Amino acid sequence: MASNTPSAAPAADVLSDVLHRRGLMFILSSPSGAGKTTIARRLLAEDGHIAMSVSATTRPMRPGEVDGRDYHFTTRENFAAMVDAGEFLEWAHVFGHSYGTPKAQVKTGLREGQDYLFDIDWQGSQQLHQKLERDVVRVFILPPSIDELRRRLTGRGTDSAEVIAQRMERARAEISHWDGYDYVVVNYDIDICFGKVSEILAAERMRRTRQTGLIDFVRDLMGSDG
Amino acid sequence: MASNTPSAAPAADVLSDVLHRRGLMFILSSPSGAGKTTIARRLLAEDGHIAMSVSATTRPMRPGEVDGRDYHFTTRENFAAMVDAGEFLEWAHVFGHSYGTPKAQVKTGLREGQDYLFDIDWQGSQQLHQKLERDVVRVFILPPSIDELRRRLTGRGTDSAEVIAQRMERARAEISHWDGYDYVVVNYDIDICFGKVSEILAAERMRRTRQTGLIDFVRDLMGSDG
Repeated sequence: MASNTPSAAPAADVLSDVLHRRGLMFILSSPSGAGKTTIARRLLAEDGHIAMSVSATTRPMRPGEVDGRDYHFTTRENFAAMVDAGEFLEWAHVFGHSYGTPKAQVKTGLREGQDYLFDIDWQGSQQLHQKLERDVVRVFILPPSIDELRRRLTGRGTDSAEVIAQRMERARAEISHWDGYDYVVVNYDIDICFGKVSEILAAERMRRTRQTGLIDFVRDLMGSDG
Repeated sequence: MASNTPSAAPAADVLSDVLHRRGLMFILSSPSGAGKTTIARRLLAEDGHIAMSVSATTRPMRPGEVDGRDYHFTTRENFAAMVDAGEFLEWAHVFGHSYGTPKAQVKTGLREGQDYLFDIDWQGSQQLHQKLERDVVRVFILPPSIDELRRRLTGRGTDSAEVIAQRMERARAEISHWDGYDYVVVNYDIDICFGKVSEILAAERMRRTRQTGLIDFVRDLMGSDG
């Protein structure tokens, strides 16, 4: 179900996860160039409890991709039928193809304590929030300055001024939705920013309402007279 | 205003606090013996941005105490007048004396970005939450088991069985209010528990709604075309 398998957790983490808890949907959004992809990759690599959900898509499979691991590859007809049946948590058209998050997969995972990472824009974020509000944690990453953003978007200097201007315009449009997020982190330094995003994830896991195992734990605590 | 002066913050912390933010009220509650006092002391010692608010009290000053640092010492008449005027965020009678948190002090501090730590029970927590809901973060610390709690409450073994039974009864009564908190941490290990409480505090500081400086930051980011 998840694209990366939960790995062995460190001792400290084991202690914290003795009690059952409901998973959460961790949304990372940012303008392109603000560091989101680096942070998402590190979270997936270092945190054994969070995974990407596997999206359904109408785009053709590429060499090396595996159906059900990278994507659930499907036809336009089937995708449209899933949309009509309300089987997506969120979906979007990107460059002529459709991508969507199947509801059933995520709902089962959340119940079992699996956290999901979503690297999506503000529109996808809004769709998820409308459908599963209490499970969603929305984090927006901001660049430290517009000059630094331009530097990152300029890349190796091989792109035309026009292409860079378009990228800047898209970045500005994305930034304008910063106030639809629960948390905001300014990426002055990628390691510090990663640390802050990890702290948000760790804290949200400790919310009382997610720790479904607490009810039995407290009942035992109150009831026993050992 | 605060009983401990904010000290120099580490570099990582400085970077995160470039933007102005509104302070928060961090409530730690737990049954006696669950580790709350140790964690509160460590937070105050290691975190330069959080302080205890100075309570007003009708109890007499003790040797070594300083008015305005340890408490605002006041008369029963004056305390009662402050209660009538609604000048307390929360107040309570404990062992024949009154204690209360003056509203004006905390409100000014929060505006200036000062965080306050409250080591109070569920009733005080409820009072604070009713008055300044958006500024309050409530954390409940649970003992790992009733046996461990009894061990901690038994202390040096000099207390009578009756006294210990009373303590256990009070602890059970406090635990029964665990579901009035935003976060719950089980104290299996004091260092891990302290780390978790620190993560909650760090994450809550990154809430968009507390980072009042973001509005200007984003305006500059969007407006500048450097």
